[in-house]
This record gives sequence, structure tokens and C-alpha cells, in this order.
Amino acid sequence: MQVEVEYLGQMAFRGITPGGHTVQMDAAPEVGGQDSGARPTEVLLIALAGCTGIDVVSILQKMRVSIQGFRMAVEGSRQEEHPKVFRQIQLAYRIDSPDATAEQVKRAVRLSQEKYCSVSAMLEKTAGLEIAVYLNGQEVERFSRGAMVTNK
Amino acid sequence: MQVEVEYLGQMAFRGITPGGHTVQMDAAPEVGGQDSGARPTEVLLIALAGCTGIDVVSILQKMRVSIQGFRMAVEGSRQEEHPKVFRQIQLAYRIDSPDATAEQVKRAVRLSQEKYCSVSAMLEKTAGLEIAVYLNGQEVERFSRGAMVTNK
Repeated sequence: MQVEVEYLGQMAFRGITPGGHTVQMDAAPEVGGQDSGARPTEVLLIALAGCTGIDVVSILQKMRVSIQGFRMAVEGSRQEEHPKVFRQIQLAYRIDSPDATAEQVKRAVRLSQEKYCSVSAMLEKTAGLEIAVYLNGQEVERFSRGAMVTNK
Repeated sequence: MQVEVEYLGQMAFRGITPGGHTVQMDAAPEVGGQDSGARPTEVLLIALAGCTGIDVVSILQKMRVSIQGFRMAVEGSRQEEHPKVFRQIQLAYRIDSPDATAEQVKRAVRLSQEKYCSVSAMLEKTAGLEIAVYLNGQEVERFSRGAMVTNK
């Protein structure tokens, strides 16, 4: 798997995949950027949600469950000293389905986090992951994964 | 730092940053996707290049060096079993500059990889990073970082 990333001037970069999909990145104005794209660390959190999101949808589809809506919120807290790695990541899955049971949704998320999601498996070497799962607006699961480091 | 990622149907997702920047993701057709966006693991490699790229530009700018062109190629190899984490990542920096010395460019890349780049610091817990640096088309540096695991 290969990607190309090219510099656009100032602090801006554009990533390009072999399929021609692009990701625009830039630094914040406070550090010389122009906010013409996402911060790379935001892109990292998006990759995490995309990775586990595709797992969960794939598993729920195999269970023949219909998905009416599905949103994830990912919040990352970084350590203060360089390199400012994520030490805590909160990941909330909000799934709306007329026919899924809480057990099915919990199982899909657990399978992704514990078996399939490669981005989770990489990030949890440095960050503790706090997972919350909501089905039709109701919390059905909450668990932690990964590095249980003391965060300042 | 928080991002939202929403499901668009089939296997497609869209990430949204607080600044309103979006990243489109989708699975490959072989696994039920429609290739309407990047694979999440491609997005991860793009985040890596964006993170270290911004560092390098920022350091070179502080050195008052002009950058005429700058491209990065990132190639990741994943393990075969789940979770299919990256075990080897090759990252090539190709910088064109009329006035930068090899020492300046090497130092900028070293500083990013060894001190500043948070995405590198996270990924090198599972992957070995092989770094190559080119200045005006000539290789000026090559070094390795991170997990020197045996890869199959």
C-alpha cells in the first residue's frame, strides 16, 4: 500500500492515494499554517474511526441488521511534551437501527476493537482507548482498551 | 482535539474536523465498498507524511532555506493476520531546494523523526520505519526507526 503526499507551499500538503482520492492537510494559523486542510493528527483520528466503522458496518451487514444512522465521535488527548502522542482517545459509536439488538451492536464493536481494526491496534500501543456504544440513543456498552498509562 | 465521522451508506464514511475539513473514506469493491474515498489505512499513512512534512517545512523555514519542491512517498506493509497492522513503513522525503545543504535537510528530517512527529512516534511502536532523504534528486540520508520486528 502506497500513498504520495505533496507540499503545496506554506504549511499545506495534499495526500493522494493510488485510487486518486485526496486528503488536504494544513497547520493552524498559530504555527504558520492557513487552515486550508485538516491537521495531520485530526486525519489520524479520522482514520481510526473509518477503520473501525467499516468493520462494524461489515459485521452488522453479515448479521443482516439494517443501519439507519451511524456516527462516531473521536476525542484525543495528547501529552504535553514532544512528541505529542495521543495518550487518551475516547471513541463513541452512535448507531441507529430499527432491528439490531444491543448484543449484536456490542459484539460488532468488540470484534472490531479486539480482532480486526488495525488502526486501533496500532494506536493503543501509546493511548488508552475508551469506547462507548450507543444504540438508538441509549448507551449499551462501555469498555477500555490499550495502554493504561498515567496521563497528565 | 475532536473529530466526527459519519456513515454514508454501503461502506462509505466521511470524517469532519472542527474546522470543517472533510476526509472521504470507503472500502475496496472486493470487500463491499465502492471506492468513493481512501482506505482508512491509506489515510493513516497520509497522516504520517503530513505530520512529519509539516515538521520538516517548519524547521527548514526556521533555517531560512527555500523549498522549491517537496514530495513524500509512503509505502506500508501489513502483517497477514488480524489485526493487519503495519509492520514496515518506507518513507521517502524528496526535497528540492537551490540553497539547502544536505546537512540541513538531514537535520530537519532527523529532528522530526526523533523528536517532534507524534504520528511517527505512535506508528513506530508496531512498525519499523525506513527513512530515505533525497535532496535535489540525490540520496543524502537513510536510517531506520521503531519496532525492528521480524516481518513475514
